[in-house]
Amino acid sequence: MEAVAFVTLLALIQFFIFSLQVGQMRAKHGVKAPAITGHPEFERTFRVQQNTMEQLVIFLPALWVYGYFGKPLYAAAAGLVFIIGRFIYKSAYVADPSRRSTGFTIGFIAISVLIVGGLYSVGRGLWIEYLS
Amino acid sequence: MEAVAFVTLLALIQFFIFSLQVGQMRAKHGVKAPAITGHPEFERTFRVQQNTMEQLVIFLPALWVYGYFGKPLYAAAAGLVFIIGRFIYKSAYVADPSRRSTGFTIGFIAISVLIVGGLYSVGRGLWIEYLS
Amino acid sequence: MEAVAFVTLLALIQFFIFSLQVGQMRAKHGVKAPAITGHPEFERTFRVQQNTMEQLVIFLPALWVYGYFGKPLYAAAAGLVFIIGRFIYKSAYVADPSRRSTGFTIGFIAISVLIVGGLYSVGRGLWIEYLS
Repeated sequence: MEAVAFVTLLALIQFFIFSLQVGQMRAKHGVKAPAITGHPEFERTFRVQQNTMEQLVIFLPALWVYGYFGKPLYAAAAGLVFIIGRFIYKSAYVADPSRRSTGFTIGFIAISVLIVGGLYSVGRGLWIEYLS
Repeated sequence: MEAVAFVTLLALIQFFIFSLQVGQMRAKHGVKAPAITGHPEFERTFRVQQNTMEQLVIFLPALWVYGYFGKPLYAAAAGLVFIIGRFIYKSAYVADPSRRSTGFTIGFIAISVLIVGGLYSVGRGLWIEYLS
Repeated sequence: MEAVAFVTLLALIQFFIFSLQVGQMRAKHGVKAPAITGHPEFERTFRVQQNTMEQLVIFLPALWVYGYFGKPLYAAAAGLVFIIGRFIYKSAYVADPSRRSTGFTIGFIAISVLIVGGLYSVGRGLWIEYLS
């Protein structure tokens, strides 16, 4: 499970960086807390961070469920794809929000692999434990 | 723990669907990213998703703490109640935000069971390990 | 791991309280759902809760990775520091958002300890398993 844990830490560090950049954009454009609007570049950076959080809430549990009950190395590989997708999403979104779909789709596929892999692994475990 | 993992995946899929519906509402009402206001139906769907995320951040760790240190099947059952509560919350909120309290309360009770069950189970473990 | 689980539950309860206070501020200042603006005290309470959620998404996985692969009692101690930092952050932010940096920094240091500790512990495990 070390590979899954390592990918987890990479995803956390990526999100931590996205979060700190929101603070930098606040300072750069004079958007004072608690405001969350006021300058387009701030708003884009903020939405990238918020959307990444929404994805992490799905990604991290799915990564661990598939990693623990299924294949840890496949889960870790899908996790790396997710992190790369988030970098692509972020740079496209900040440049032009309408171009965010490629990076989003990469992350979406990675999460789908984790959820489907998790359902298969856990479903198989439930079958063996209770029904066979 | 397969039952806890299965309920986790169900909750993630539910949240994934809520998230995709926010994107659909963006398209339907022409609310362009990064805006998060602009049409009441978009705003309600967005707040349902955001509130569900806030609840998941509490729900998932509490589910696993009570499931692992206490009773996995009780935890999984409370988890199913939570998911049902979220569906009720969502359909009421989108129709009329002032009617969101029933679904919220069901989720609130489920989370309270998980936290109280977790505190009891973990507290008992700490007592045995360090104090008895 | 009981100490890590106990700190987890404390952090969840703290966030649960912050979340309920957002609802109280809605009622007190007549900010009707789905609006998230309308009164400064509501907006500050809401941003404290949102920012705490952003931090929890990093904090909880990092706490468990370092606790499980490294030192559970060090992780639990850093976790307590994080929770104290969040209380300081909250009371300062609600009084005056410009004074939020002390509490934020305490939480930031606690999370950094967990991530660096996690990277060291997991990296060491990966080294032993695959490279030595």
